[in-house]
Amino acid sequence: GAQRALWVKNITLCQKDHLSATLLSDDLPADFLRAITCQVCDHLLSDPVQSPCRHLFCRGCILKYSRALGAHCPACSLPCDVAELKSPAKAFLAVLHSLALQCPREGCGELVRMDAFRAHCLGHLQQRQTQMRDNHADGELDGYLPVNKGG
Amino acid sequence: GAQRALWVKNITLCQKDHLSATLLSDDLPADFLRAITCQVCDHLLSDPVQSPCRHLFCRGCILKYSRALGAHCPACSLPCDVAELKSPAKAFLAVLHSLALQCPREGCGELVRMDAFRAHCLGHLQQRQTQMRDNHADGELDGYLPVNKGG
Ligand SMILES: [Zn+2]
Ligand SMILES: [Zn+2]
Ligand SMILES: [Zn+2]
Ligand SMILES: [Zn+2]
Ligand SMILES: [Zn+2]
Ligand SMILES: [Zn+2]
Ligand SMILES: [Zn+2]
Ligand SMILES: [Zn+2]
Repeated sequence: GAQRALWVKNITLCQKDHLSATLLSDDLPADFLRAITCQVCDHLLSDPVQSPCRHLFCRGCILKYSRALGAHCPACSLPCDVAELKSPAKAFLAVLHSLALQCPREGCGELVRMDAFRAHCLGHLQQRQTQMRDNHADGELDGYLPVNKGG
Repeated sequence: GAQRALWVKNITLCQKDHLSATLLSDDLPADFLRAITCQVCDHLLSDPVQSPCRHLFCRGCILKYSRALGAHCPACSLPCDVAELKSPAKAFLAVLHSLALQCPREGCGELVRMDAFRAHCLGHLQQRQTQMRDNHADGELDGYLPVNKGG
């Protein structure tokens, strides 16, 4: 329930690193949504690994979960040794990486492939830094140049 | 359980029309496999429709199921009127149709996209019919032509 979710979040601490499923541009079927989200943190799978019982988690999440709560699967409770985790099938990873996410930045809203999403957001950040630097430069110039206030 | 599965199969009668999940060439994650199979017949989704509770079924399966067992979702038992069924998101259909299936025909084993699989199998059938016709033609000629038995 909600208590367990909070408890798990305090273990994984991935809120700032992982992507939310709310970024998905489509209204996807329930089972498909479950298939592409981490069974520990509920974010979109980030560097996923597969347990012997074929459940998926972010690599970071299952390692932290196992260390804190023991070597069992968070989805089905079967034994799950971290040494037995393996990479999911390439066909599945291709599906995951090609999911279309909608950029949440105001005035953008572009659809971006999941594997290009970080680069896209970094672009916005750099753009913003450039603007701030330009504004700052303008601000400095304001102090040196005579300002025609009209009238 | 097994009893219900048999009972459902006697309603859907889709064994010869739908494709088995065993044709999938990859060892896919459990939740992903669930996402691409019909929650009534367990075959790979064929002409899928989505319920208001976002579960997926072959169109034929949910229509037959509803008629026989009532207007509720076979996956979660929530009310499910066939008039409320809609097409799943295009992004999901693209994933489903591009799944790689392995042709089970001996000597072939080719990986074929799900949306090209019927045409591929039809190719084998036509090839076989041509061979049978040729063999039959040879057989007829055998009766008319003098056969040099050597010696
Ligand atoms: Zn996370
Ligand atoms: Zn996670
Ligand atoms: Zn499990
Ligand atoms: Zn953007
Ligand atoms: Zn079927
Ligand atoms: Zn079906
Ligand atoms: Zn349902
Ligand atoms: Zn073939």
